[in-house]
Amino acid sequence: MGIDSPSDPPPRDRPTGVVWLVGAGPGDPDLLTRRAARVLAEADVVLADHLIPSAILQEAPANAEIIDVGKRPGMHSMSQDAINELLIIHARQGRTVVRLKGGDPFVFGRGGEEALACRAAGVDVQVIPGVSSAIAVPAAAGIPVTHRGVAATVQVISGHAGWDGIAKQVGHHDPQRTLVLLMATRALGSIIDGLVSAGFPSATPAAVLEQGWTDQARTITGTLGDITALARQAGCTSPAVVVVGSVVDLRSELGPLASPSPTARHVP
Amino acid sequence: MGIDSPSDPPPRDRPTGVVWLVGAGPGDPDLLTRRAARVLAEADVVLADHLIPSAILQEAPANAEIIDVGKRPGMHSMSQDAINELLIIHARQGRTVVRLKGGDPFVFGRGGEEALACRAAGVDVQVIPGVSSAIAVPAAAGIPVTHRGVAATVQVISGHAGWDGIAKQVGHHDPQRTLVLLMATRALGSIIDGLVSAGFPSATPAAVLEQGWTDQARTITGTLGDITALARQAGCTSPAVVVVGSVVDLRSELGPLASPSPTARHVP
Repeated sequence: MGIDSPSDPPPRDRPTGVVWLVGAGPGDPDLLTRRAARVLAEADVVLADHLIPSAILQEAPANAEIIDVGKRPGMHSMSQDAINELLIIHARQGRTVVRLKGGDPFVFGRGGEEALACRAAGVDVQVIPGVSSAIAVPAAAGIPVTHRGVAATVQVISGHAGWDGIAKQVGHHDPQRTLVLLMATRALGSIIDGLVSAGFPSATPAAVLEQGWTDQARTITGTLGDITALARQAGCTSPAVVVVGSVVDLRSELGPLASPSPTARHVP
Repeated sequence: MGIDSPSDPPPRDRPTGVVWLVGAGPGDPDLLTRRAARVLAEADVVLADHLIPSAILQEAPANAEIIDVGKRPGMHSMSQDAINELLIIHARQGRTVVRLKGGDPFVFGRGGEEALACRAAGVDVQVIPGVSSAIAVPAAAGIPVTHRGVAATVQVISGHAGWDGIAKQVGHHDPQRTLVLLMATRALGSIIDGLVSAGFPSATPAAVLEQGWTDQARTITGTLGDITALARQAGCTSPAVVVVGSVVDLRSELGPLASPSPTARHVP
């Protein structure tokens, strides 16, 4: 693979490095894939989202450089351009660079932008898909995102921009569709109100899954009519996964379906 | 946890077993989660979908009973009721039962039905989420299912019933939505025609990803206007993942983004 900028060639005495875009899953070391664990154990540099638990970061070699690039809701984070640049700089120095992301790199992880930046710079880049929190967190709470006769499709949406950001994506009400909203805690009220004004019956089941795949998981269930108040009452403030659709009702029969590791920490 | 049927108690000298609903991911042993690998290595009985590669099944203990429950498109498979019953019977004999599914157990895996059957029978059941083929297979081909400014949401649909089965789920055209269709090879023509008749521009990019996460992966890209003919021309017959949306165009810049293990075998 060639290098785009002839003015900045890699050192001749070692090969150009590689960037691994790695999905860390929902925050449980047990839910890393084996490929992710292996690559992490060989990393020279790790650029990690803020919420990646230390139990996972500790699997990098002791002399690896760990860089927290932020990506914390509402907090100052490194800009996407700066992250892209760091990936390329380190790879050009011949290093094995691991970009560790919550969930899957291509489900609202901006992995595509990082991959494009690497390609444009002639830096080798590979993706290791991860277990998406959008599926795993509802599963842990006893909510299958699809279920024959109940939900024939699942749609995943980022709620960070509130209702205005997602109104077009949601479209019309379909009783057989499960909506999974990531990063929706902050804008919960606006989103729920928007769904009702768009024609979703206020009796539609809904759940707020806080600290989803962890020992401290809290599940608040209700309907579009009352979930905002229930979540407020319960004091939900941390990043949560929100599920809207009839599958939420299965939880009463299924109950919790997973035992997160004690070291797990929620990564949305 | 109690047992429902007093006429059929577990043997008193060993504890009731447990059923693990395990996502095997897209068919690469490297993309098993560590928890999935550990549980599989301790299995007494494995009930596996037909396409789970032997490289994964071989990780079960040598004396474990491996049962192929079918689930092959268009072929005779064990009925869902029979599978549920087997899970319960084996668990009641005190065994560690692993139900191994392609992708994730709750993304069209009927994991919810199996979990409900276990709960109703008083059998302990746990879920281990997996890497979904709906995300990993496009990723391998260089197609991020979401991408800032291109796709703000992703919807996963099962195409096995053809257009009539999904028309309601698809709804209106939204240029910022990625559709991922699983099990859509057989009904590809009906689905593509349906999308166009529902108002999707025939210039909408589309891709058929055959043998997705394997060394034999084939990617056919085109538009809704020509993808059916292109896939037919290419002789696509095996289960594929179909992607519809502007993210397909990113492939021309990103190219393939993963190196599947030589033993990987596509599991839709």
